[in-house]
Amino acid sequence: MPPRQTTAARPAIDGARLAALLAEINSHGANPATGGYDRPAFSPADMAARRAFLAAMEADGLVAHMDAAGNVIGRIGPPGPAILIGSHLDTVASGGPLDGALGCAVALECVRAIRDAGVRLTSPIAVVATADEEGRFGGMLGSQALAGVLPDGWAERATDSAGVRLADAMRAAGLDASRLADAALAPGSVRAFLELHIEQGPVLEVEGIDIGIATAVSGCAVLDVVLEGAANHSGTTPMDMRRDAFVGLSRIGAALPAVARDHGTGDARLTIGAAALSPNAAHTIPGRADCTIILRDMSGEAMDALTAAVLALVEEAAEAERLAATVTVRSRLEPVALDPALQAAFARSAAALPGTSARTMPSGAGHDAQTMAALCPSALLFVPSRGGISHAPDEFTPWPAIERGAAVFLATVAGLATA
Amino acid sequence: MPPRQTTAARPAIDGARLAALLAEINSHGANPATGGYDRPAFSPADMAARRAFLAAMEADGLVAHMDAAGNVIGRIGPPGPAILIGSHLDTVASGGPLDGALGCAVALECVRAIRDAGVRLTSPIAVVATADEEGRFGGMLGSQALAGVLPDGWAERATDSAGVRLADAMRAAGLDASRLADAALAPGSVRAFLELHIEQGPVLEVEGIDIGIATAVSGCAVLDVVLEGAANHSGTTPMDMRRDAFVGLSRIGAALPAVARDHGTGDARLTIGAAALSPNAAHTIPGRADCTIILRDMSGEAMDALTAAVLALVEEAAEAERLAATVTVRSRLEPVALDPALQAAFARSAAALPGTSARTMPSGAGHDAQTMAALCPSALLFVPSRGGISHAPDEFTPWPAIERGAAVFLATVAGLATA
Repeated sequence: MPPRQTTAARPAIDGARLAALLAEINSHGANPATGGYDRPAFSPADMAARRAFLAAMEADGLVAHMDAAGNVIGRIGPPGPAILIGSHLDTVASGGPLDGALGCAVALECVRAIRDAGVRLTSPIAVVATADEEGRFGGMLGSQALAGVLPDGWAERATDSAGVRLADAMRAAGLDASRLADAALAPGSVRAFLELHIEQGPVLEVEGIDIGIATAVSGCAVLDVVLEGAANHSGTTPMDMRRDAFVGLSRIGAALPAVARDHGTGDARLTIGAAALSPNAAHTIPGRADCTIILRDMSGEAMDALTAAVLALVEEAAEAERLAATVTVRSRLEPVALDPALQAAFARSAAALPGTSARTMPSGAGHDAQTMAALCPSALLFVPSRGGISHAPDEFTPWPAIERGAAVFLATVAGLATA
Repeated sequence: MPPRQTTAARPAIDGARLAALLAEINSHGANPATGGYDRPAFSPADMAARRAFLAAMEADGLVAHMDAAGNVIGRIGPPGPAILIGSHLDTVASGGPLDGALGCAVALECVRAIRDAGVRLTSPIAVVATADEEGRFGGMLGSQALAGVLPDGWAERATDSAGVRLADAMRAAGLDASRLADAALAPGSVRAFLELHIEQGPVLEVEGIDIGIATAVSGCAVLDVVLEGAANHSGTTPMDMRRDAFVGLSRIGAALPAVARDHGTGDARLTIGAAALSPNAAHTIPGRADCTIILRDMSGEAMDALTAAVLALVEEAAEAERLAATVTVRSRLEPVALDPALQAAFARSAAALPGTSARTMPSGAGHDAQTMAALCPSALLFVPSRGGISHAPDEFTPWPAIERGAAVFLATVAGLATA
């Protein structure tokens, strides 16, 4: 049953207004050389985008502020626990126009649409544009601060890949890292967190589906593999006297798809994205191969099974090629389930919008929603990504698909805030 | 039947004198930081070693000179076509003490031993220390010049990996690249070329055999392979929607040993020593993989069959992973057969030395003997390499094994020069 509407006017997305707001955000950090957007966390472009978004919220009558983590939050409606909606404003280097920015723009457009329709809110709505979702400093700083789950002492130690300290980057942006804890939202002050984001994967486009409803954010383990053999002359060393680290690595790489299929769920993903040979000289048998295996699945049990299967695969490859092998689990994040009731609300809104198809799916990428789930029921709505491309200037979603996703998101938010 | 000796005294290697000569050569270019030797072609250390070797030959009564290519040649005995013996003095960066230098030292020690034994030569003996065998400028400059097989115009174009022009490097060494053709030996002026070298592979050590007699130098083809798929997010892209260039590369790498076994001779060698992924980021599916396949075998037919099998393998891997693939045969050198009569002479000398085992084997590495084969009957004798290691500071052959190899070489040279 669709949520009850408490007013006669039905709020509707204003596509032109949404596009203008998105363009305003992307006027900050646009890089003509790459065609992408550079708003690394706490950079001048990132802070300018935040200030502009804050000003836009205030102009729309929201009570807004920038918190101690650089998150920008604006609130409208009655007192009480809020429906929190939004995404992030920072980008990776030469990122696309949609990753994060779209979710922020849609969130504020929802408030504008609800206001214009004269909807009477029974719950307040808060719009948030989070800080450093892209992990310049290794985490999801903004949403971790909001959810109160920043690890002790982490903020003091954190640096970016160039060695810049978080505290220094924040100071340059006019923020004080020692006050990060002040950004924590009180438990119970937020009823739900909802985020709209591009899928950043190919599934919706390939299947011709309009809306993805994330059931969970997959867990992710990072395994460092080192294979050591013997670097010898490729001409003088017979095939049967070799200890070729690349042949060992190849056995692993070629078998990973089968391991994912046989030992994971249908959402298992195993990837070797980076590898290095040593000495990496064409005429020398590689004496050493290093690679990183990224392992993802939707349950801890499946991650355990995949990890065990990868370890067995590495051992088998090493034995076959007479290599020494070490596997180090560098990090492991557990899967995070998203809220079933909110998923159902998204599904109802999609079903109520004529000609709109939706499916549930895992989120293989990390998002603020997974962090916010520690604070409150959280949910994540996807719109299609052309070619599955993201983190690149040619990241693209057709505008009608954006408007359709925004409409589903709006209906859901309006339903929750008027229930 | 062994060759007839024309004198009563049997020439014998003086191990201490040989060791001293080798040490004298290696006093040039010794690198205390690496424990290796740096005598890149035409470097001051290389030229100093050449001048010292020239002086040593002159002190021993050889009529010696440095030719237009930087080769140092000394001759002794009657007029007429010579038995040419030697190897090269240049090294790779941080090379070992034996690769090249040992063959030069053994050659001069043979002349000293023959002289000391009062052997009357019926053929002159010429000792040669060739220039740039290691291919700083992309060829085997010294022996190519001697054999008169330098490609037209090559010397004018050649540069090293740092972009230094051959002509400039030679000028700095006091040589004139425009006169390289003057180094060519007249056809018929050389009866045979014999070279002693370390194996640079593991076979003799593993099999416990003292002497390797090369039957041929393997052919070598260099194949550049490019696989292009799609670089996508490792978390959001399901396994069955990927076009993972590394999985394709892995299929190729894992199958190469079987291809060598099934499509080549017992001496086939297939190696991927160098590979590069793009973007080579742990969390991104590789969109592109480049590698170089080095293909070696002892017959042109086997090389054809291996090349065809590699092309089929690449095509199969590309199809399985939905990649675009290109294979470019960047270069191909045909196998070079060495002289059967000289091989037999080495075998007879080994058999005549008590307790000495020998076997015929291919040379998987390139040597001056393969170039000289264009000018005259040529042969190549191997002594064992510990662990098959070469082109590295820990290149090593036990001294008794060196003396045994030198004795077999000496007996063969003495036999030929007194036949």
